Amino acid sequence: MTGGYPLLVADLIGVAVFAASGASAGVAKRLDLFGVAFVGFAAALGGGILRDLVIGAAPPLAFADWRYAVTAVAASIAAFWLHPALHRVRRTVLALDAAGLGLFTVTGTVKAIEAGVPAVGACLVGMLTAIGGGLTRDLLTGEIPVVLQREIYAVVALGGAVLVTVLHRVGQTGVIPLAIAAATMTGVRLIALRRRWSAPVAVP
Amino acid sequence: MTGGYPLLVADLIGVAVFAASGASAGVAKRLDLFGVAFVGFAAALGGGILRDLVIGAAPPLAFADWRYAVTAVAASIAAFWLHPALHRVRRTVLALDAAGLGLFTVTGTVKAIEAGVPAVGACLVGMLTAIGGGLTRDLLTGEIPVVLQREIYAVVALGGAVLVTVLHRVGQTGVIPLAIAAATMTGVRLIALRRRWSAPVAVP
Amino acid sequence: MTGGYPLLVADLIGVAVFAASGASAGVAKRLDLFGVAFVGFAAALGGGILRDLVIGAAPPLAFADWRYAVTAVAASIAAFWLHPALHRVRRTVLALDAAGLGLFTVTGTVKAIEAGVPAVGACLVGMLTAIGGGLTRDLLTGEIPVVLQREIYAVVALGGAVLVTVLHRVGQTGVIPLAIAAATMTGVRLIALRRRWSAPVAVP
Repeated sequence: MTGGYPLLVADLIGVAVFAASGASAGVAKRLDLFGVAFVGFAAALGGGILRDLVIGAAPPLAFADWRYAVTAVAASIAAFWLHPALHRVRRTVLALDAAGLGLFTVTGTVKAIEAGVPAVGACLVGMLTAIGGGLTRDLLTGEIPVVLQREIYAVVALGGAVLVTVLHRVGQTGVIPLAIAAATMTGVRLIALRRRWSAPVAVP
Repeated sequence: MTGGYPLLVADLIGVAVFAASGASAGVAKRLDLFGVAFVGFAAALGGGILRDLVIGAAPPLAFADWRYAVTAVAASIAAFWLHPALHRVRRTVLALDAAGLGLFTVTGTVKAIEAGVPAVGACLVGMLTAIGGGLTRDLLTGEIPVVLQREIYAVVALGGAVLVTVLHRVGQTGVIPLAIAAATMTGVRLIALRRRWSAPVAVP
Repeated sequence: MTGGYPLLVADLIGVAVFAASGASAGVAKRLDLFGVAFVGFAAALGGGILRDLVIGAAPPLAFADWRYAVTAVAASIAAFWLHPALHRVRRTVLALDAAGLGLFTVTGTVKAIEAGVPAVGACLVGMLTAIGGGLTRDLLTGEIPVVLQREIYAVVALGGAVLVTVLHRVGQTGVIPLAIAAATMTGVRLIALRRRWSAPVAVP
């Protein structure tokens, strides 16, 4: 996957959106500016750090390429100052978050496959890349992770990771098929949001 | 340690039991089916993932061998549907959990020694392999880890890890002595449960 | 950085102080002796373990050198028995904690640079080395990490890590300049404590 510059830009947009979601959670918990930036960093880059630790890529990209950390911290500080405005653009934020979900799943799955992780493991790594940041954000702010409780989010990532793994198996590893996979995940996520789809909860 | 097929089967039974404990915790917290499966996966494989990250084995076995992930998820989904029945068989579950405690400690300690971790570190890694899943389960469901609060559980793992390290030092690395070590831990854990042994708490 | 024996002694003092802080938190949560020792271990060595995982140094020093684990556990058990006395010497504990902050930031940043982590990443690793233990302590005891909420603590570590990185860039990698950097951080932290400096919180 040699998306190059366009991929980097797309990746950094995902980082910025996830950082803003983490920063907003930090503001809601009355964290100070440092805490807000830290939770924003963790929400944006926690999934990728987890991915790189699991596939043995040290140091993780979040520490190896300064543009990731700087983007995450800048977006978090912006959210710290602008958080009342974030609520007004929440539909845009949700749409960008859905785009980040698709993108992070694709890059996570592809990196895992390229690092030699077998198919089932690569799907799990791809899903963890997408949901790891949100998990970290919720643990740092003292919440049971929202991704475990409701809504169709992680399941979209898991389904997308399976799709990417199948595409890889049949030799479709170019930018076009992977972009279609990411866009499909984003679309399913947006439909799930609009239709309020949710996963079943056990009968007590 | 070349236990081969019998060891794999024993290992997967441990994974299934730990997954059921995680899934039950998830059901109790009203997580959805995905959340229950995720917490089950983390409870079953979190200790082994931690072990493999510490000893530098990338990707961790949980991602490298699909049978582990599939067993954990299948057991979690079973627990999701059958959880009222789980309560009725809770003595069996506790006994299997004690067996998993012994087994995971042995495999964790042996893997750490074979990866070149010195004796004290190998004991800690062995103990972490056994308790890491429960720790992760409790953190994900918003609880202070039960293993830190009461009962003789981690101490059994630590004692067992010391025993395995001593056995290794004197050249007893076959299946028989290691199986005896695992069975001893399981027995001590069951006695501790029955006698309600607990560790001291500080005077306030 | 070849501080050798004096550095090891300084490092172990930092480990003991951080362990005592973790153990005190465990006692306050009514954890049993094992839980207190575990939280003490995590508070003392969690930052260094995180650092070593990120820079790819397996096994982490906490598992490779028994003196670290033994110091952390011994200090935790001492705090378990002596915790009422700890309150009386809390000024000393805070001063030693400030010394640990400076020292851990320096060693973390230097190790990251020597492992080939670029400048921005090395600063983040240095800061994480200093605050990772406190983060782990708070997560294990069910608290939102205090370092995210108030006081000038992590920012001192981050500023110190930047200073160390600059010193390294200009070739000042001897014990003297690094000791001055650590002492500066300790001093700033103590002044911040005395003056009750705090970081801004977002307007609701």
